[in-house]
Amino acid sequence: MAHITTSVEYAIHCLLWLVGDDDRALSSRDLADLQGVSPSFIAKIFPRLEKAGIVRASEGVRGGYRLARPAEDITFLEIVDAIEGDKPLFDCQEIRGRCAVFGARPPAWAMAGKCAVHAAMLQAEKAMRDALAGQTLGAVAARFGRTAPGEFFDDVKAWVDIRLAGRAAGRGKPRRDMPS
Amino acid sequence: MAHITTSVEYAIHCLLWLVGDDDRALSSRDLADLQGVSPSFIAKIFPRLEKAGIVRASEGVRGGYRLARPAEDITFLEIVDAIEGDKPLFDCQEIRGRCAVFGARPPAWAMAGKCAVHAAMLQAEKAMRDALAGQTLGAVAARFGRTAPGEFFDDVKAWVDIRLAGRAAGRGKPRRDMPS
Repeated sequence: MAHITTSVEYAIHCLLWLVGDDDRALSSRDLADLQGVSPSFIAKIFPRLEKAGIVRASEGVRGGYRLARPAEDITFLEIVDAIEGDKPLFDCQEIRGRCAVFGARPPAWAMAGKCAVHAAMLQAEKAMRDALAGQTLGAVAARFGRTAPGEFFDDVKAWVDIRLAGRAAGRGKPRRDMPS
Repeated sequence: MAHITTSVEYAIHCLLWLVGDDDRALSSRDLADLQGVSPSFIAKIFPRLEKAGIVRASEGVRGGYRLARPAEDITFLEIVDAIEGDKPLFDCQEIRGRCAVFGARPPAWAMAGKCAVHAAMLQAEKAMRDALAGQTLGAVAARFGRTAPGEFFDDVKAWVDIRLAGRAAGRGKPRRDMPS
């Protein structure tokens, strides 16, 4: 499994549907269906994004998820951390202490500070995290917006309107699909 | 499992024992025992380092592994790639094509170029790889050398000398422990 998992990929693609229209909220079912991914997967992921303050959820017939902040302020790093949790790039086992000449107990100097190998890996992790922090949902949505034709957004709006109208008319219960 | 695995950690710590003394070669068994890690693990890892041109192996009673190049020219990125192979940070599933409004077949514009989410992840991967490419075995060995007392290196030399003398005297067969 890749370090940044499919859960993050699905989360970002679904979050992109929430950019730019704060009037409407989409349920995890709406988002999953619109993006063509598993509803149960999205229902598991979005509560994590809510907990991280990336989306906010509302109840009711027109309830669902909205972005909790402007898309330009939501970084890929926040999304990755919200989904993946504390997941280091390199999990130092402190094997520096296991040198044969130390015997059963490594000397204090050998374990002082951070292992030089670990420190090098942490620099690489920081570089990766800084790059993720430099990417925002807003910027990626804007990039996508420049490649997609105008009628695509009309089609999406029509799809969402039909979905919301279906809810309002009572066809299908309102759902956020949020597991407790 | 972390993206940069324990195999890389073990490899780097063992490679550090090969820095600065080109007169002697250490078998994978010597390296494993000196570092206090599993010999079979090291016997699996070192052929990959040899294939990548990071170490060279020699046969015979005094055979074993040496660095193939100056330690200052061996980067952490090369070591990671040699051990982990082609392992992307993010494995794009191209779910951009699975939007409900596309129906069964996404339009050409939707699949043109690289997915914007994937492109952002590739930038993060590049930042990580650039950082790993900036770390060399020689620099990390030098950093370690500044923290370790002089007698430590004498102890290591004595440990290795006893091990090599044991081999030369025919106690235990010469071994590189290289699986075919």
